[in-house]
Amino acid sequence: MTTARPTEFRSLDVFRQSIQELPGPDSSTAHAARTRDAQLTKPPGALGRLEELAIWLAAWQRRHPPTLERPLALVFAGNHGVVAQGVSAYPGEVTAQMVANFKAGGAAINQLCTAYGARLEVIALELDRPTADFTQAPAMSESECAVALSIGWSALAPDADLLIAGEMGIGNTTSAAALAAALFGGTAAEWVGRGTGVDDAGLRRKTAAVDSALKLHGAALADPLEALRRVGGRELAAITGAVAAARHRHVPVILDGFVATAAAAVLQRLDRAGLDHCIAGHVSAELSHARLLRHLGMRPLLDLGMRLGEASGAALALGILRGALATHTGMASFSEAGVSGKT
Amino acid sequence: MTTARPTEFRSLDVFRQSIQELPGPDSSTAHAARTRDAQLTKPPGALGRLEELAIWLAAWQRRHPPTLERPLALVFAGNHGVVAQGVSAYPGEVTAQMVANFKAGGAAINQLCTAYGARLEVIALELDRPTADFTQAPAMSESECAVALSIGWSALAPDADLLIAGEMGIGNTTSAAALAAALFGGTAAEWVGRGTGVDDAGLRRKTAAVDSALKLHGAALADPLEALRRVGGRELAAITGAVAAARHRHVPVILDGFVATAAAAVLQRLDRAGLDHCIAGHVSAELSHARLLRHLGMRPLLDLGMRLGEASGAALALGILRGALATHTGMASFSEAGVSGKT
Repeated sequence: MTTARPTEFRSLDVFRQSIQELPGPDSSTAHAARTRDAQLTKPPGALGRLEELAIWLAAWQRRHPPTLERPLALVFAGNHGVVAQGVSAYPGEVTAQMVANFKAGGAAINQLCTAYGARLEVIALELDRPTADFTQAPAMSESECAVALSIGWSALAPDADLLIAGEMGIGNTTSAAALAAALFGGTAAEWVGRGTGVDDAGLRRKTAAVDSALKLHGAALADPLEALRRVGGRELAAITGAVAAARHRHVPVILDGFVATAAAAVLQRLDRAGLDHCIAGHVSAELSHARLLRHLGMRPLLDLGMRLGEASGAALALGILRGALATHTGMASFSEAGVSGKT
Repeated sequence: MTTARPTEFRSLDVFRQSIQELPGPDSSTAHAARTRDAQLTKPPGALGRLEELAIWLAAWQRRHPPTLERPLALVFAGNHGVVAQGVSAYPGEVTAQMVANFKAGGAAINQLCTAYGARLEVIALELDRPTADFTQAPAMSESECAVALSIGWSALAPDADLLIAGEMGIGNTTSAAALAAALFGGTAAEWVGRGTGVDDAGLRRKTAAVDSALKLHGAALADPLEALRRVGGRELAAITGAVAAARHRHVPVILDGFVATAAAAVLQRLDRAGLDHCIAGHVSAELSHARLLRHLGMRPLLDLGMRLGEASGAALALGILRGALATHTGMASFSEAGVSGKT
């Protein structure tokens, strides 16, 4: 568990400058992957999205063959003042309890990281100091938001060859709904879902909270980073920072569910190509996630009715990516295997 | 590679008798799985289909916790006389070439079995003696079909705790289309697709071949086993036999693509509960597969645009199943982890 406070970004504007020039994919390694794919002993395209995944990995890692030797799962945890509005089915102390569960190896993400070979880092962000209730005031000061962005940025280990980023934070689907509405428009009701499982009354309170926030913060939400600061949360800002760092270090990213995708979407609103190094690992049962992915033009890899967060959906997608890499690197070519081509 | 010819089934009627009484799931192990699932540190249902998978595995393996220690991938290969009608983009000799590729470890299924920890057995069924062209005569004699059913039945290793069954056979999507039409009705055009990638002219020839077969064999196709004999193939019959054996030995099955599912569907037409121990691992890009799954009332786990066969889609689903088992068996309960429940 990391509690260090790196100081890369003194302000939101320093962060903003850091993502002014984003590196793109490497067309030559993508070409090498496409060339190899065409020679493998299968009809062209018969491995479907597995083929695209191998090419995507080569393009963004800027090497061929690509690797999955050190995939890194980062799970950021934060607490939210907005829980005072009765927006969650669980009490706020569950965030810290689940962080302890992550540490002890007992959560879903622990098992999935073991199953699919990812290293897990859990980073708790001042759990004893929740963000402000964003129905009353900005969730974070500029300095708090910049620190969270910095922590996420620094959490990306230098040797990682893939990033999956997830979150834990009671109340954070309310925050994500407000952020998504700020970034893409639409009413509170369109973006609010049941999260961990609130009842009808809880859903009405969530919708009312997002509605209040949209009214309170108004035009200030037009700037994506300001929206993150005002209605986001520390774990969301950390994800934004980690996904931005991954872009700079040529590390492809598998996005997780609604909250993680909303946090990453800040980068896409700052630069239309800001998430080109990311794929959507899955679509959550939280219906707003599908809506958000449509706004981002992303087609999720998996649709398993999951809605847990913790990077769990992204971890399962890593399992699929392992199959994509194994076939791309391990299969024989038509000439190696002496298999005839199309007639 | 197995070439033995076991003689379990002297006739189709002996096979028919062997599946008269099918064992069901164990409600007590299913209950044990449901009970454990409800205690794990996640909101109820938050792992979506992963939770269903763990319960399904426990129910059909008849033990809790369920295991994935010895998953077995069986790939059956056969040749088809109907290739004389110009129904495939590849020459018939590719079947044997791909079997050699499987043996040498160079095919997609080899890499996927390694990635997801399944043992692979490849069983070539008289490749030098293709079935008869079913536009002219029944594909197999009764004895040939019974032998193929027997080989499939015997191929299920006694210690397997999961079966994935796939196929390789140039021309066999034409066979599967004819079989699906025989089992579920509909025109040739509704069931024929591009398979490995035929052009428009090839697609017309495929459709014409299936059309001819439906006319030639007519009312005889009303019996599912007779349909399998007349328009199926050896590798399809072997899959039918293997999936039936799995039911008797309490081995859950992940179905692969269009061809493997059509072969298994014979069992569902013989007994409406005949595939209750199976899940659809994926839905293929071959559109008829989705149609077939709708007829079977099955919701595929994955939708990755694959259309390779070889059990490749089922192997990827095994990858997901590993995550389901890992979370089910490895996660802490709320009480173990000291995490608060719903408020």
